[in-house]
Amino acid sequence: MSDLLAGRPRLITAGVQLFADAAAAQGAEVSRVDWQPPMPGTEADLATVLADPRRAPANAEAVRRIAETQALLVDVLPAGPALGLQPNDFLHAGPPIDWQRASGPLRGALLGAAALEGLVDDPEQAEPMFAGGAGYTLNPCHSRGAVGPMAGVVSSSMWLFVVEDPATGRRTYCSLNEGLGKVLRYGAYSAEVLDRLRWMSAVLGPLLQGAVRRHGPVDLKAILAQMLQMGDEAHNRNRAGTLMLLRELLPELIDSDAPSTDVAEAARFVAGNDHFFLNLAMPACKLTLDAARDLPGSSVVVAMARNGTDFGIQLAGTGDRWFTGPAQLADGLFLGNYGPSDANPDIGDSAITETAGLGGFSMAAAPAIVRFVGGEVSDALAASRRMYEITVAEHPMYAIPVLDFRGVPLGIDVTRVVRTGILPQINTGMAGRLAGVGQVGAGLVTPPAEIFPKALAALAASVPS
Amino acid sequence: MSDLLAGRPRLITAGVQLFADAAAAQGAEVSRVDWQPPMPGTEADLATVLADPRRAPANAEAVRRIAETQALLVDVLPAGPALGLQPNDFLHAGPPIDWQRASGPLRGALLGAAALEGLVDDPEQAEPMFAGGAGYTLNPCHSRGAVGPMAGVVSSSMWLFVVEDPATGRRTYCSLNEGLGKVLRYGAYSAEVLDRLRWMSAVLGPLLQGAVRRHGPVDLKAILAQMLQMGDEAHNRNRAGTLMLLRELLPELIDSDAPSTDVAEAARFVAGNDHFFLNLAMPACKLTLDAARDLPGSSVVVAMARNGTDFGIQLAGTGDRWFTGPAQLADGLFLGNYGPSDANPDIGDSAITETAGLGGFSMAAAPAIVRFVGGEVSDALAASRRMYEITVAEHPMYAIPVLDFRGVPLGIDVTRVVRTGILPQINTGMAGRLAGVGQVGAGLVTPPAEIFPKALAALAASVPS
Repeated sequence: MSDLLAGRPRLITAGVQLFADAAAAQGAEVSRVDWQPPMPGTEADLATVLADPRRAPANAEAVRRIAETQALLVDVLPAGPALGLQPNDFLHAGPPIDWQRASGPLRGALLGAAALEGLVDDPEQAEPMFAGGAGYTLNPCHSRGAVGPMAGVVSSSMWLFVVEDPATGRRTYCSLNEGLGKVLRYGAYSAEVLDRLRWMSAVLGPLLQGAVRRHGPVDLKAILAQMLQMGDEAHNRNRAGTLMLLRELLPELIDSDAPSTDVAEAARFVAGNDHFFLNLAMPACKLTLDAARDLPGSSVVVAMARNGTDFGIQLAGTGDRWFTGPAQLADGLFLGNYGPSDANPDIGDSAITETAGLGGFSMAAAPAIVRFVGGEVSDALAASRRMYEITVAEHPMYAIPVLDFRGVPLGIDVTRVVRTGILPQINTGMAGRLAGVGQVGAGLVTPPAEIFPKALAALAASVPS
Repeated sequence: MSDLLAGRPRLITAGVQLFADAAAAQGAEVSRVDWQPPMPGTEADLATVLADPRRAPANAEAVRRIAETQALLVDVLPAGPALGLQPNDFLHAGPPIDWQRASGPLRGALLGAAALEGLVDDPEQAEPMFAGGAGYTLNPCHSRGAVGPMAGVVSSSMWLFVVEDPATGRRTYCSLNEGLGKVLRYGAYSAEVLDRLRWMSAVLGPLLQGAVRRHGPVDLKAILAQMLQMGDEAHNRNRAGTLMLLRELLPELIDSDAPSTDVAEAARFVAGNDHFFLNLAMPACKLTLDAARDLPGSSVVVAMARNGTDFGIQLAGTGDRWFTGPAQLADGLFLGNYGPSDANPDIGDSAITETAGLGGFSMAAAPAIVRFVGGEVSDALAASRRMYEITVAEHPMYAIPVLDFRGVPLGIDVTRVVRTGILPQINTGMAGRLAGVGQVGAGLVTPPAEIFPKALAALAASVPS
């Protein structure tokens, strides 16, 4: 003890910087540990969940299933027969919501979809039906095994990618990507938007169906693993993924009996849209994450999704229950003359990519993304590194070259989020807040902090006493 | 002065570490500057060249020309008419060499090419002709505006990519990439090798010609700039480049009147060879570098090339003269059971990519390359950073995302190489040292140091007194 006091003091400090600063000012050697207390009011729930002996094995099983489940593109089908949708049945991104609480871009996409399905001639004529609350259904994509980027509206005539786990036959679904700018998923519904969607249903969908069927199953996880070596993070950069899909399907597209002008137009459409593969990355992520659902005691997040008003998460240990809070505004880069006041809060099922360790969690693999979502390259590297603090594993198949081929951070653990206060990093497109506008930018966003204590509380309540 | 001695000594040391170590051991604060004396015996030539008032503006003009010259793929042609080759005229990679001094892989490729051109039935029957020194010609690719990877052998029936600078009509040429393993450019000449080359001349070349002509000029520098955002460095990773080329040409390939089985085979061949774009990166680099030739006083390197025996460089300020020394063995990873004793010294014109700031100079953009050429990711980043020490500019169009979009190091300055002792970093394939073997691995290599003082001496001799 006397030895300890004889030398120059060397302190390790955690938390409050004031104490560390004072000691440093007096000449002490201070090693600061980046620590903060758990989110307020979560101590009891944390203690309950962390003491649950089921948790560690359930979480290990969750990430094992997520990592090992295969995801094969096996078909392309119209949503009507594939999901049992009638022309007045609509799906949307994120947790459940009704028209009254729906944001501009979701309303815009619903109006457009109603016109697309022939319920009205002009999109805006559908407003009374939606506002009246009768004559239609509105459900989350996630409730039907589907995911949708941005507004995520799916209606019966739209065609869907069908992704299958060959071990179980389970399937997930996602619409075909329309491109950027004035598109339905960003809430635009002008004539050009609807014409494009009609062409996609009449020409692109059937051509892709033929190509996929002739080709046979396409291994999406193998493509995702390659993408991370090629500067894509599979949320806002899908450039290499789209090219690899094209390499697989283009020869088969050509092999169809369709008019060569249709084939050429389809090839040009896919080749000209660097985001086309996003709508395959998303259902592939959902398929693998769904394999971890319903594992009692697991604190791993199996879905993050936003409807433009609410941000919701689901846990492996709490069934289909959503834990929601207000969707946040992204911080990023704007198109043309748009600015922050034009943006809608965070929207879309695409945060399923982050939930699976891609997107914002893999930005270190895609430094060029900062040119699209803003920030510095060092931020992208730091974001990936930070996500290891709140995840339980590293993906054995998805590696980040610049981090010495470390596996991407996998399996968001709600206890780690609550304990550290570190929120999942999402990168995302930004929709205009008014119906009809379309995309206004892209940026970085996090979930509202409050949903993690809510989810933790529900998990704690499920622990047998 | 008394103030200076009152405090604790703080030293900046350069060069010999012994002095720095001694001061540090006595408690001084030492900042070590990484410095070493110029290469031995170069002091007078360095002084002459550095004092030449033409040098700085000539070097600035050199890199301006290299950066600004466009490179468009405009055609695909047989080498005979394109380069005026007869069936007994052969081109090879690197500086000039004769059969007697040629290494195994170059000999193997020449034997194969002689059989391909029908001079003999069996490749090995051509050995007396080559050894006798009569009945054929043997010249560097570079002497005909061409470049060839590895052995780089071009003969009259092979088809070539034609790359053009639209401002001047200047053209460069390169053969079509055969894939990896047992291929002519690595010195293999078995029946499968020759059959593949015959198919490439009969089917692939004409199909590509039709596709390029229907498509119109393909901007290769735009593709190269994209590749650096997608994990390619355009020497040993050309995966994204190949996919982007395919995206451009595949729709046009299909549009041909050729049998669909031929089209399908050609598409599969290109899609299955991640190195296909190398043979476009190389002539694009040569075309831009050639724009900097013949600038009196310039110390910028405009070509680095190896014939398997000699490594040669050419400078902007010294015309077509080669400065040569013994090609080195690469350090890297080996295929199958091959090891270092199976490898031939460094061979090929592909170091033209490094000369233009790509390849080893851009490895930071392609960290996954270490899985192909060996080393750690940190080595790849360090290699790119080191190359800024020996170059005069940063490329305005080719950016490395992970280095905060810094332009690639451009314009190797022979005076900087001689003054720092830092040698250009090249990554490369390794050919078997025996004729007929083919590829044995890939790795990292540098030129022999002695060629830079030789080049500097010639440049010094050209300075008006």
